[in-house]
Amino acid sequence: MQITNFEHPLNEKVRIYLRLEYLIRQMQSACQKTDQWQHQIFFRALFDLLEILEQIQLKAELAKDLTHQASQLKRWLNVQGVDQQALLDLLDKLELNQRQLMTASRLGQELRNDRFLNGIKQRFSIPGGSCCFDLPALHHWLHLPLAHKQSDMLNWLGELNEVSTALLMWLRLTREQGQFLPQVARGGFFQHEAEDACLLRIQICPSYGVYPMISGHRGRFSIRFIPFEEGASIAETIEFKLAVC
Amino acid sequence: MQITNFEHPLNEKVRIYLRLEYLIRQMQSACQKTDQWQHQIFFRALFDLLEILEQIQLKAELAKDLTHQASQLKRWLNVQGVDQQALLDLLDKLELNQRQLMTASRLGQELRNDRFLNGIKQRFSIPGGSCCFDLPALHHWLHLPLAHKQSDMLNWLGELNEVSTALLMWLRLTREQGQFLPQVARGGFFQHEAEDACLLRIQICPSYGVYPMISGHRGRFSIRFIPFEEGASIAETIEFKLAVC
Repeated sequence: MQITNFEHPLNEKVRIYLRLEYLIRQMQSACQKTDQWQHQIFFRALFDLLEILEQIQLKAELAKDLTHQASQLKRWLNVQGVDQQALLDLLDKLELNQRQLMTASRLGQELRNDRFLNGIKQRFSIPGGSCCFDLPALHHWLHLPLAHKQSDMLNWLGELNEVSTALLMWLRLTREQGQFLPQVARGGFFQHEAEDACLLRIQICPSYGVYPMISGHRGRFSIRFIPFEEGASIAETIEFKLAVC
Repeated sequence: MQITNFEHPLNEKVRIYLRLEYLIRQMQSACQKTDQWQHQIFFRALFDLLEILEQIQLKAELAKDLTHQASQLKRWLNVQGVDQQALLDLLDKLELNQRQLMTASRLGQELRNDRFLNGIKQRFSIPGGSCCFDLPALHHWLHLPLAHKQSDMLNWLGELNEVSTALLMWLRLTREQGQFLPQVARGGFFQHEAEDACLLRIQICPSYGVYPMISGHRGRFSIRFIPFEEGASIAETIEFKLAVC
């Protein structure tokens, strides 16, 4: 059965983490593609990401979250039936990521100082503003050999290595904490206690033709399923799977 | 020999035409790709294009320019050595495009009224703002079958058919009016009369490691070649080709 996955953050911090992950994934994908317009995805994601990093103190928050995650995992030490070696490896990785994150210089600072990136950044917020005559330096760069461009993109992405490694690890472990359970929405509506959760994950069959509008916080949340096609009716019961992480 | 093409508009109108072409090309390309992030390119280009159309009276300007182009072409009627059938066909096409453009409803109006597009448009200007929890409707759409999505994109693009056909034709004919001639920049600098031109086109070998910064207007222009690498020296003589259109 085909499945659409939705995720919804239950607090502002996870909201930002998900946005950053979304941008990092775009950059990672664009690095590997040969399509002539990939740079649009790469640079926009990069500049968006830098803008978010400007607005928040990500480093300290994320490091704290990794420490919290490690302390939760430590409860499984010496518990029978738990693979202790795998657990210790994971704790080592967490600690390494946390240490690398904390010793990293100001996140994205090298990218902010980069002459080429600085020269093209402003134009990307103007409609159609990255045209060849707007940004001849970018246009020159676009005509460099593919290997050269990909190497540049990997280098720029590499400047975000500490934050992306730590962020993707935290999100992976957080997602793994929740278990998908079957649920039913009646009349397109579902609500539940969240019990100190920070992330909701929903799996739903696209054939219902609905998408979820979610509101809530760490204690309680509600999901309203909205028909994608205007005026379409909605199934009386909608079966979906929900993980509260 | 590998060549990098640069173009530079000599007036504000052609500047806008080139930007619109640039956005249309992105949308046309994104329609045909299967990559999961193509929608980023498509929707951003679409929303940028709609924003530009909001700001200017494109229809009347472009129609006038097509008429002007036709009148210039008519000077070749009954001139010996000119393929009269090809010329008449071209004039027919120009007239058809011009008529279709003039009879089109307000450019992009259907797109502005589109519920789905309207629902996602605002979020695209927020850094990382098109995440699945920001735009669950978009996220649902992204999980529709590829053929469905491509058909939607082609339909949206089709709403801009009159303007894109007319615009691309005008640009093609304008570009064909100029002939590439070899030129030499000394000390990285070149200047010339423009003789009522509206578009400069430059072909240069990327191995010079330079890009052109152009300033000018319809009467006169200057080109300064800038080294792409900071602090790099610049060849005493730079050979390039220039078409003044």
